[in-house]
Parts: sequence; C-alpha cells; structure tokens
Amino acid sequence: MRAVDIIRKKRDGHALSAHEIARMVQGIATHEVPEYQWSALLMAIIWRGMSEAEIVALTDAMMRSGSVVDLSAIPGLKVDKHSTGGVGDKTSLILAPIAAAAGVPVPMVSGRGLGHAGGTLDKLESIPGFRVNLDLDGYRSVLDQCGLVLIGQTAEIAPADKHIYALRDATATVESIPLIAASIMSKKLAEGIDGLVLDVKTGNGAYIERLDDSRILARTMCSIGRDLGKRVRALITRMDQPLGNAVGNAVEVTEALACLRGNGPSDLVDLSVELAAEMVLMGERAGTLEEARHRCRRAIADGSALDRFRRVVEAQGGDSRVIDDPSLFPQARIRYDVAAPCSGYIQRLAARPIGHASMLLGAGRHRVDSVIDPAAGIILHHKTGDPVERGEPLCTVLMNDESHRQAALDLIRNAYLIGDSAPPIEPLIVERT
Amino acid sequence: MRAVDIIRKKRDGHALSAHEIARMVQGIATHEVPEYQWSALLMAIIWRGMSEAEIVALTDAMMRSGSVVDLSAIPGLKVDKHSTGGVGDKTSLILAPIAAAAGVPVPMVSGRGLGHAGGTLDKLESIPGFRVNLDLDGYRSVLDQCGLVLIGQTAEIAPADKHIYALRDATATVESIPLIAASIMSKKLAEGIDGLVLDVKTGNGAYIERLDDSRILARTMCSIGRDLGKRVRALITRMDQPLGNAVGNAVEVTEALACLRGNGPSDLVDLSVELAAEMVLMGERAGTLEEARHRCRRAIADGSALDRFRRVVEAQGGDSRVIDDPSLFPQARIRYDVAAPCSGYIQRLAARPIGHASMLLGAGRHRVDSVIDPAAGIILHHKTGDPVERGEPLCTVLMNDESHRQAALDLIRNAYLIGDSAPPIEPLIVERT
Repeated sequence: MRAVDIIRKKRDGHALSAHEIARMVQGIATHEVPEYQWSALLMAIIWRGMSEAEIVALTDAMMRSGSVVDLSAIPGLKVDKHSTGGVGDKTSLILAPIAAAAGVPVPMVSGRGLGHAGGTLDKLESIPGFRVNLDLDGYRSVLDQCGLVLIGQTAEIAPADKHIYALRDATATVESIPLIAASIMSKKLAEGIDGLVLDVKTGNGAYIERLDDSRILARTMCSIGRDLGKRVRALITRMDQPLGNAVGNAVEVTEALACLRGNGPSDLVDLSVELAAEMVLMGERAGTLEEARHRCRRAIADGSALDRFRRVVEAQGGDSRVIDDPSLFPQARIRYDVAAPCSGYIQRLAARPIGHASMLLGAGRHRVDSVIDPAAGIILHHKTGDPVERGEPLCTVLMNDESHRQAALDLIRNAYLIGDSAPPIEPLIVERT
Repeated sequence: MRAVDIIRKKRDGHALSAHEIARMVQGIATHEVPEYQWSALLMAIIWRGMSEAEIVALTDAMMRSGSVVDLSAIPGLKVDKHSTGGVGDKTSLILAPIAAAAGVPVPMVSGRGLGHAGGTLDKLESIPGFRVNLDLDGYRSVLDQCGLVLIGQTAEIAPADKHIYALRDATATVESIPLIAASIMSKKLAEGIDGLVLDVKTGNGAYIERLDDSRILARTMCSIGRDLGKRVRALITRMDQPLGNAVGNAVEVTEALACLRGNGPSDLVDLSVELAAEMVLMGERAGTLEEARHRCRRAIADGSALDRFRRVVEAQGGDSRVIDDPSLFPQARIRYDVAAPCSGYIQRLAARPIGHASMLLGAGRHRVDSVIDPAAGIILHHKTGDPVERGEPLCTVLMNDESHRQAALDLIRNAYLIGDSAPPIEPLIVERT
C-alpha cells in the first residue's frame, strides 16, 4: 500500500493496520515518506482519532525506530516516572533519588520546558557543570554506579518520534491524545525500563486541562505500556496551582533539595513520596504501598536519598557544593515582591499564568531554541486557601532581564483571586489507573 | 499570524481571512511555508471545508501567484470552456473551432489525462508534430492569427496551483470541492478570458459522481468567477457512459473531425454545439441561445469550423494532412472485438471501467509520468439503449502493448449490462447554473 493510500484510509475514518503504521514510521527516517505526507496523516489522525490497537502499533514502531536500550545487566526492576508537565513540577528531582535509595534503579530520560511548563533538564542544568547529554554507555554506567541517572533524550532513542514531534509542532497537530500517548510511551519504553509510573496532570496548568481528557490519556498510556509488556501505573493529579512554592530552575532545585532534607512544602513532598512509593512497589522493593511509603519517608529521614542526589550530580559532572550552599547557584540581580491588593483568602492561584510569567522572566522557553536564565523565576509565599493581608508579599519575582517585566507582573497579578472566604481544598491526587 | 496558527484556525473549524490565505499561497513559492505545513492545511480543509469567501480568496491568490495574461489587444470577448473530465470527452476539439468560426476568440488552456479520464493535450499530441507547449507570446500570437489556441498550462500560469495540486495528489487531499473549484478557476482566470463555460460532469465516469456534489461544484465555480468579475455559466451533464463512440487519443481526434464534418454521433455533436452556443452567446456573437445554436450548426455545415481546426493545427506545428487522411494517425498493431455475451438491450455501459480499460491499453495515465500510446483505445459500436445480438461486436479494442490485455477486457466486459428491456434514456444535459 502506498503512503497516499494509507493517508486516504485514515482520512476516510478507517483504522490502519500495524503494518501500515510501521511503513509510515519507517518511511520518515528513510525519506521514502516525505514530511508533507506525514503532516497530512497527522491532521487526519487529529480528525479521525486512533483505536487502541493503532496507538500501540504507532508506539511500537516509533520505539523501534532507534535503539531500545538493554539494561538487563543491571540487577533489579528498572522503573521510571513520567509527568505530562506542569508548573513548579520538580518531583523528578526528589523521587528519583528516593526510589534509588529504596533500592529501585531509576533510568530517567527527561525533557526540556516549553511554553508555560518547565522541564527537568533545564532545572538540572542550573547546577553548574551538570551534563544531561550522556551517551548510552554513560547512561548505563551512571545508573549502575548511582542507582539513578538523569539525562535528556539521545539521538539514538526513538528518532522517529523526535522527527514527528517537530512536524506536529509546526502543523498544529500537537493536541491529540493518541499522538501524545504514543510520543511519551515510545521514548519511555526505549529506555530499557521494566515499569513506569505516570503522573498525568489535570487542570489549568496542565497541557490537557479537562479531567475527562486526562483520564483518557492516562488509560491510553497504561494500555500501551501493558500491551507492550511493561508494568504501568498512572496517577491523575491536580495542576490547578503550581506545585510547591518555587517556579523556575535554580529555585526549583533548591526546593527539591529542601524536600530531600525533610523541609519541603507538604504538597510537593507528599506527591513526590507517593509517586516514589508507587515506583518502589512496582520495583518489588516493598510488598504494599504502605510499606513502600514508609521506605521512601525513611530514605529522606536517614539522608540516603540526598546522598543519592549528591552522587548522581557528581557522576554527571555537576558541582555538588550547591547542595550544601545554594548561594553557589546562579543568582538573580533583580528581586521584586508582588503585594496582595486586598486582604482575604487566596481562592485561586492559577498555574498557567504563573508558568507563562516565569517563562517571560527568562526561566522558560517561548521557542524550542530559547535560552534559559537559570536564576529567573518566582517564589510563592502563599498558596490557594491561605489568608493574606493587604500589602503583604504574595510572591517574589526573580529576574536578570527586565524586558518582559510588566507583562510578567500583569500575568502574575491576574493569576490570583482573593476573596472573603476560604475555598474548599481539593486533594492533589484525583485517582489512580 | 504564523502559518501554524493559520493551520490551527482551520483545524478548529474557523474561516480564514483573505490575508491569511494569501500569506499561505505566497509562502509556498517563497518556501516560507514549507510543504509539510501546506499538506496539514489541505487535510484540515478536507475536514472543515471552506466558505465561499475563502474559496474566492484562495482562487484569487493562486491566480496571482503567476502571470495573469492580458489579451485586451485581441478584439472581442475571449471565452473558454472547461470540463471537469470524463471518458470520451473530446468536446473541446469540436467546440473551440466552432466558437472561433462563429467569431468568439477561444484561448484554451487544457490538461492531460489521469486515471480513467482522458485529457485534451494527450489527444492533440496524437496529431504528429502538434506542439501544446507554447510560451505566452506564442499563445497570444496563435489566438490572434487563428481565433483559437490550444495549449497546456505554462509555468507562468498559476504556479502555486501546480505546486499545491502535486501536494494534494500525494496526500489524499484531491477530493474537496473547494480545492477542486479553486484549482480549476485560478488557472482559467489567469488565461486572460472574459468568460467561461463550464461542463460539470456527473455520474459514474465523472471525478465527482453524485449529482448533489456536482451541483455544489458548479455553483461554487460560478460564484468564484462572478465574484472575480467574469461571465460564467455551468452545464451539468451526464457522464454515465462514454461520450461519443471513441475512447483514446487518435481515435478521439478522428471522431472530433467527423463531428466537424457533420458526421459525428449525435450525443457528442449535440453537447458540443450546446456548449459552443453558450460560448457564442457569452461572447455576444448572438442575441439568444437559439441564434447561437444556429450559428454553430452553420459553422459545421459551411466547413468554417473544420477550417479553423486545420489552421490551428498548422499554426501549432501539427501535420494537418491527418485531417483528410486519418490513416496518417499512429495505428494500433492489435485490434480485438469484444462480442455480446447474450442478446438484449444494453442497459448500462459504465464510463469509468471503459476509461480504466483504455488507460490499461496505453491510452491513459496510471501516473503523472506515464507514457501515452496515441493509437490505443476503444471504439464502441453500441451505446446504452441499443439492442444487440449475441456474438455481435460490442466494441473494438485497439492496442500495441498487450501486457494488460486481460485486465482491460475484464473491465470492458463488466462495464456492460445487457437485459431484456430497453432502459429509459436520460437527457445528457441535466441543468444549467
């Protein structure tokens, strides 16, 4: 079947066979299927959707487009976590060393921020010297030595996904649950993992805002992983307000370190421990979730998680002195407090405008090739439900470049809604799949 | 607005502005809008459709992507005809010299065959030496000299349409009335015409089979032309069975010549005269359609139409001796009669399988770059409604290359349905817009 016939089949609403999907995915690397055919297929997929079998076939074909890492030489069940992205979401930096300390090898391949959402790689790079671009040998070796490794997607892993993602970004075909699920899972399954814990965000600061859609995405990713022989569990968690109090890069690493010392904000600590506990249970280092939680709390209390973090920073070329002396992180030249315009309760602190403001201050990417200022960001002094007095600082804004200062401040002020009564506080974890 | 935002707007079902459409059309020539963005937009257009204002804007932008020919130095209202394509449709070869003889200058830019449908250029090229690739100066000069000119699309005319059409062909985005209408009209309006008569085919052998869709296409093309200041009239005509008795290239020219001598099959003569009469009326060489018909019949009877044909053949480098001696046309080495399997009435003679069979015999194009055998084709001895005796030849198949002989014969046999009663005969012209 020719590529044009495959496009026509999807255009007309029929399901594609695994063979047809594999032919299209293989064709993008060999240039047998030109980009203009792929982008037409992508729009037809946005239009017509994909069946579960098609999504599994797409994931499988994208995963096989590059190296599928073999980590069998490293003992134990290797478990990673993936978050669909949000604002202030630095759980990876906390839970990876916790799970590693609890005995689960964590081979973590992360991404960069884009738009309002941050990325683990950008945060890690605020540690002077930290190298996220290891090759696959370095990846295996750091994992073996530290029990965790924190890298970016290499050229060998799922190159077809990289190619197709760039096309989606340029053709308004990003917003498709089948394509999002296949993109995430193809990369994760190529890492050599045995299991994956998914943190599917829902709400204002998530890429997928509606709970119904988040549920579909969570179930789709679980099905793909299980169909391809992996352990997968998904938690749907609220991303209505930023997670923790720090939004940016150096400030988020600093907050993650506080969590590893047992001094972090409770929403962030609780979610990180919960996700780490799911990893520990999946990695068979505990018999029940309750026991797994206990192991995770202990890894914080006895300093073993912080020690793992120190080891991985050193193994990946970072200056581990920042762990004990955060003043060694890049510092913002300008600090500005945003005052509460009235007294009352914070009824809403919307994650998306805070994320956008942080991006404008220099902490995020407007475009794929934007340069990050590791020192820029926002520190929140109050969260949803907190009572505040008029004039009291709601947050502190950190920047070196003032060129978007006013736009950022406008976004921040609009993110807050202050009212007379305390709002109901919803639990952070909505459900598990 | 960036191209990706324009794609997103159409993806989400919103109408694009004329400015946005012009930006996309201009961008394909300058490579500012890469092909992969255009093909995603094309699929979104298939999905969401286009408003009349959008179609007019698209036509206008494609027309302006190249030269818009100025024929004002040639006196009179210049009128062309366009058919949406079918099987055995050689009316252009008949009506252009008729209208020219009746005093209407006919600047005709035609296309090639593809799939089951033939093309005027391929037919003309069966005349030894005939050159369809004139430049715009040659085009003006032959029109001035002969009152008609018969060429192919030049590189200067609507280059964006050519580019977009090639993309549509490769991305399963051909079947869209807005895109079909804009493609046809952008080329025709760039020719320098004042008026256009459209022959919109409907039925089994048409690209658009359903009458409702043919109506929409006809109305859409009329609206575009009128919005852009041209006279336009559309006839919807049946393409259930082949038009006339000859299907191929040299055989179709031979049949067209018979019509110009007054000896053609009545369906073909009547439709050619009717379309020519619409052109004569539009070109103000007659006050009523009845008077225009009379002028056209007279141009056949007095030999002036045939004379015009002879002049244009000579002006475009063709060997005009074929007009008086059809044995000078390329001849098929193999002739094969298909016999009636039973006695009765021909209740159906489906155009599409006959067109496909003709293509397989070498008379048409499977791909854009297929080589045409001018001698190959099919001569029908009976049409729908005719009584036939078992064993009597239904048609004669002409070929030089036997490699697809069996497949072609199977298609031909299946095109016929012979039954006990004469079927009702529907009028060829369904309606006028």
